[in-house]
Amino acid sequence: MKVSVFRKEHFNAAHRLHNPDWSDEMNKKVFGKCNNPNYHGHNYEVIVRLTGEINPDTGYVYDMKLLSDLIKENVLDRFDHKNLNLDTEEFRNLNPTAENIVVVIFNILREKIDSAYDLKITLYETERNYVEYPS
Amino acid sequence: MKVSVFRKEHFNAAHRLHNPDWSDEMNKKVFGKCNNPNYHGHNYEVIVRLTGEINPDTGYVYDMKLLSDLIKENVLDRFDHKNLNLDTEEFRNLNPTAENIVVVIFNILREKIDSAYDLKITLYETERNYVEYPS
Amino acid sequence: MKVSVFRKEHFNAAHRLHNPDWSDEMNKKVFGKCNNPNYHGHNYEVIVRLTGEINPDTGYVYDMKLLSDLIKENVLDRFDHKNLNLDTEEFRNLNPTAENIVVVIFNILREKIDSAYDLKITLYETERNYVEYPS
Amino acid sequence: MKVSVFRKEHFNAAHRLHNPDWSDEMNKKVFGKCNNPNYHGHNYEVIVRLTGEINPDTGYVYDMKLLSDLIKENVLDRFDHKNLNLDTEEFRNLNPTAENIVVVIFNILREKIDSAYDLKITLYETERNYVEYPS
Amino acid sequence: MKVSVFRKEHFNAAHRLHNPDWSDEMNKKVFGKCNNPNYHGHNYEVIVRLTGEINPDTGYVYDMKLLSDLIKENVLDRFDHKNLNLDTEEFRNLNPTAENIVVVIFNILREKIDSAYDLKITLYETERNYVEYPS
Amino acid sequence: MKVSVFRKEHFNAAHRLHNPDWSDEMNKKVFGKCNNPNYHGHNYEVIVRLTGEINPDTGYVYDMKLLSDLIKENVLDRFDHKNLNLDTEEFRNLNPTAENIVVVIFNILREKIDSAYDLKITLYETERNYVEYPS
Repeated sequence: MKVSVFRKEHFNAAHRLHNPDWSDEMNKKVFGKCNNPNYHGHNYEVIVRLTGEINPDTGYVYDMKLLSDLIKENVLDRFDHKNLNLDTEEFRNLNPTAENIVVVIFNILREKIDSAYDLKITLYETERNYVEYPS
Repeated sequence: MKVSVFRKEHFNAAHRLHNPDWSDEMNKKVFGKCNNPNYHGHNYEVIVRLTGEINPDTGYVYDMKLLSDLIKENVLDRFDHKNLNLDTEEFRNLNPTAENIVVVIFNILREKIDSAYDLKITLYETERNYVEYPS
Repeated sequence: MKVSVFRKEHFNAAHRLHNPDWSDEMNKKVFGKCNNPNYHGHNYEVIVRLTGEINPDTGYVYDMKLLSDLIKENVLDRFDHKNLNLDTEEFRNLNPTAENIVVVIFNILREKIDSAYDLKITLYETERNYVEYPS
Repeated sequence: MKVSVFRKEHFNAAHRLHNPDWSDEMNKKVFGKCNNPNYHGHNYEVIVRLTGEINPDTGYVYDMKLLSDLIKENVLDRFDHKNLNLDTEEFRNLNPTAENIVVVIFNILREKIDSAYDLKITLYETERNYVEYPS
Repeated sequence: MKVSVFRKEHFNAAHRLHNPDWSDEMNKKVFGKCNNPNYHGHNYEVIVRLTGEINPDTGYVYDMKLLSDLIKENVLDRFDHKNLNLDTEEFRNLNPTAENIVVVIFNILREKIDSAYDLKITLYETERNYVEYPS
Repeated sequence: MKVSVFRKEHFNAAHRLHNPDWSDEMNKKVFGKCNNPNYHGHNYEVIVRLTGEINPDTGYVYDMKLLSDLIKENVLDRFDHKNLNLDTEEFRNLNPTAENIVVVIFNILREKIDSAYDLKITLYETERNYVEYPS
């Protein structure tokens, strides 16, 4: 009797899409406005889904307060009000597309959450563009 | 050619998280503010998903008006403007966590809906905390 | 050159609408389901609007972090996860309708905020019912 | 390492639910207000989900700008500000229920998108009624 | 001590923007896609704001249940699932722009609501286009 | 018979709050995380309100397509996917707080819109923080 529980948090960050192996022209062509050298930014919404059995003593799959704290300590403190390209280790050599960010957040949280729980992350870059991992 | 159809409804209820087998201290520690003896409350949003074949005569998987009525009669009339712990049979001896509520709603509706349809329930306790069953 | 700044916060509470000077029948007739003796509840969204001049040194009308803290200390800590009728001094003898709650919140914050700022409060009881004071 | 990417677009259209093989009475009984001979309408929200591998050169599963253009050219230009029953080939002989519309949109886009990508469409007819295909 | 209370309702309708005194060319030029002879449609959201004194017996400015019923009987029953141009008296000779619709709704409700209350109507035609009257 | 019409648009930008006349310590103390030297960013939502008479020939206060184009050309093309501090003339010597941004947008649009129309701008920096000018 597995139930999924979801917690939504948000962070605000600057980023720039850029492939250092490409010419400026090629970067401009592929990434358009997102390649602006001085960065732009987003209000990212992150939704963490855990799936597991209900604990009969608590009625919880996972304590939402603990999950919220876990996300704050491991994701928000790392990325909120940061420049993803310049201020974070994770995206120094990895293009901070929504796809790459969602995989990075998954990998960070996967280590912190008991493998008895299935984990899925949804990341909204804007209200109209979002990504999910695993698919 | 199966299509899923979704209907969203809402109800407002009071509840308190509490395990009668535990001391007050333990309850306070585990459930925090949600253990307040005088209850607190939520605007619950419930989304019912049915999956089935499109009926070629109607173009419907399920008549949304009938589904809305079914939810009203079986879920909203039972829980809306109620104290889940005191006013409902279902949660007299079951802690009304979002996880337990979503399973209860699933079981109520599962009996009322032809087994030819797959059924999934999503329940929002707040905009940032929600649950889904089956996972 | 006055600008209005808005900060949105939320709290979850139980309440019951009831006039102790009336018969049970009259209460039932006027307040309907909201008169349920065992309470029901809501996710309240509160929006605080301050209007004032932009401080040329900061570019702020009011520091949003300070405003958020002020709302937390004076409104959320008082009402969040509470039973408005039983757990709060403000509504012991005042019917906790959205209208009365919004006026109470206004009066609480008006004392804490320099009178140089105009103040207005919006309170959502549900997505479809909300109130504003002053009008 | 498959990631799903989502793009949300919208279009406004008129439609009428009607089965020409049925009597007016039967149509009225089954489709109710949606059978109004002079049509009614909706703001449709369409969400396109593509699932695939992240391209290591771009960090993209699919360029969201290209996906948005693809939806505009193939779905919005065809259905936006149209009467689905009268102005479109697809629904001349097919009842424009949300279920049928979502399958039609899936089939249109499936031809335009490399089969290496999984495709799923969500269509909101109103905030409270929506459908998904494949299920 | 005046408080404003708001009630949000919605209706779905078809319409067409057209000035019969103009040529087809002129209509097409001014109204673009909204001039489609076969109509298109919207999910309209209507917000009714009443401003008045709090009744000390009820704690209400206005009973939201009564306001909701009033809107249903006078606005939704008239316009929901209708073709505004063909099925309604109000727009037979009046172009059903959002501006004209909001004034019509105001005038309908103004007659039904005691003049002790100030009245304002907000009408969303889409999430990104809306109007308010009086201004 | 004045009606207000609203058009909502959005842009994504990076910024940093900083007063060059202050020490780094003072900047850090006042602006906190928003002072990050490498910038952070937001999805800004901008709502433009025009108030005026309904033109009896069109039923419009203002053509929403023209208003949308005007916002795109004068606001979005200038600020979207930009670093407000580095890439824009307006904020080279003006701290890009929400308050200052909303006044700048008002001044840009005020010049482009006939003075017969009243103008008000609302700017969302996040879902929970927003500003309005004039107040």
